[in-house]
Amino acid sequence: MDGQWVRPLGEQQLGDASYYGSEFNGRRMANGRRFDPRSTSVAHRTLPFGTKVLVTNLGNGRSATATVEDRGPFVRGRIIDLSPRLAEHLGMLMQGVAPVEVTPVELAEAPN
Amino acid sequence: MDGQWVRPLGEQQLGDASYYGSEFNGRRMANGRRFDPRSTSVAHRTLPFGTKVLVTNLGNGRSATATVEDRGPFVRGRIIDLSPRLAEHLGMLMQGVAPVEVTPVELAEAPN
Repeated sequence: MDGQWVRPLGEQQLGDASYYGSEFNGRRMANGRRFDPRSTSVAHRTLPFGTKVLVTNLGNGRSATATVEDRGPFVRGRIIDLSPRLAEHLGMLMQGVAPVEVTPVELAEAPN
Repeated sequence: MDGQWVRPLGEQQLGDASYYGSEFNGRRMANGRRFDPRSTSVAHRTLPFGTKVLVTNLGNGRSATATVEDRGPFVRGRIIDLSPRLAEHLGMLMQGVAPVEVTPVELAEAPN
């Protein structure tokens, strides 16, 4: 976990994750904002834009929180498409595709 | 340079490089082989398949040799699409798109 407090909000989903190539750099995502490889943006087929998700790489247990900003991926068996930043954080850049768990969550504000 | 002896074979080309996302994992490249993020495959619009190229990141001077195996990229100003392995080697993963020099080369056999 990257030290962020989260509270699960919905059902956990299992499937494969892939990540964006930089051909998408600067292009508009489905929510209208421009794609940035350094961001924590992800594409998901159904979750509303702005939904926070916890993504866990089931291959190595590494996880990260992200925000749904785009629609996709449209490849069978793949449930989420990650920014390169997230793919690096989850240790799956060279592997390319990894089994993940995706859970919609609420992020705790920084403790005051 | 990654220590590989090369002999330039053709004119050097200048332009931007991007890299593949892992949505392409396992898919067929234009030369019929399957795309592997760990490979040193690149896409170029015109160089013949099998051509070896030296790719230098003009932003940091890092370079790597690669093999043309696919056609693309088809975005104005971009002259080459790299495997994630190459993008990592050239230090451009987070940047996403980097100015590069691409030179067709002959690779020296390992000195006997």
